[in-house]
Amino acid sequence: MITLSAFRSVPPFAQGLVRDFRVRWALEEAGIPYRERLIGPEAQQSAAYRALQPFGQVPAIETDELKLFESGAIVLHIAERSDALMPPDANGRARTSAWMYAALKSARRPAVLDKVQKRIAALEDWLGGRDYLEDRFTAGDLLMTTVLRILRHTDIVSERPALKAYQARCEARPAFKRAMADHLRPFAASAA
Amino acid sequence: MITLSAFRSVPPFAQGLVRDFRVRWALEEAGIPYRERLIGPEAQQSAAYRALQPFGQVPAIETDELKLFESGAIVLHIAERSDALMPPDANGRARTSAWMYAALKSARRPAVLDKVQKRIAALEDWLGGRDYLEDRFTAGDLLMTTVLRILRHTDIVSERPALKAYQARCEARPAFKRAMADHLRPFAASAA
Repeated sequence: MITLSAFRSVPPFAQGLVRDFRVRWALEEAGIPYRERLIGPEAQQSAAYRALQPFGQVPAIETDELKLFESGAIVLHIAERSDALMPPDANGRARTSAWMYAALKSARRPAVLDKVQKRIAALEDWLGGRDYLEDRFTAGDLLMTTVLRILRHTDIVSERPALKAYQARCEARPAFKRAMADHLRPFAASAA
Repeated sequence: MITLSAFRSVPPFAQGLVRDFRVRWALEEAGIPYRERLIGPEAQQSAAYRALQPFGQVPAIETDELKLFESGAIVLHIAERSDALMPPDANGRARTSAWMYAALKSARRPAVLDKVQKRIAALEDWLGGRDYLEDRFTAGDLLMTTVLRILRHTDIVSERPALKAYQARCEARPAFKRAMADHLRPFAASAA
């Protein structure tokens, strides 16, 4: 059984954006059950947690065989074990990982908004009439969606109908909805 | 045969840092021969090149079977085919990819230098007395080295002896030196 680390509590602006969500969504798409391990600031600083996650961040996962950190690497690990997230052929696998790296590079801080705008424009051009980045949903779309969500307080996505529709298409997936509910549940419990 | 796209010419400050270098180094470590395809600004904007690299950047690779972009994804693709860059066991493979994602997140713009400092400090703690990020050189070290090099005009690495020694250890590899020579050669030719 996979144990996934997530924060017990985060400020409202960050809810729905914390990176454990990416892993929850990937696990839902893959149909893999998991346990959550909720942590707070004290655990983040601890040597025990840093042995699992060298930067004291979430997410990290533990299984009987494996300790792994970095949301991208964890999603890749899950994707390699599930056709739901990655095509089985070598070309499809490689291109899925290309989009995963591209996604994580696409959203940056306001200081580089101009660069973000250019990447987003190129992304919209690429999508054209496509439903997904390649010819089917992959882990690349999963990460790209979570990155587009970071831009939700800007008009970068909302002013681009094709991109907005792409994000909505990905967010309409049942696995997205289940993962989001699980992501938000601890915060509500913590606030209560 | 792999064809790798790289820039024909870049300003002096960027020489040695352009991302095709990561791929050249990985190919050298893996002992895989390749051809280079040198491009300029006009090609970057072309529809033909954007079909290969959606953002108009370098590097991209082409083989008979595959078109692939994003330096991280290309290095991963090479690493999956070479024990020189990735251990063969599942745990080792997953952790190598974790460090690859971690590396690409570790260097950011000056606006977030404070965050970079924290990550670099955590990285130094992690390394401790280790020679490499895990118990041997992997593609994670390769990407981490190329990212540390981006900080060369700051004292972030130079003031941390263990980290400086780690970077020097990686840069002392014969494959690094061959790749750097190949990376710089077109710029000298272009300037001549």
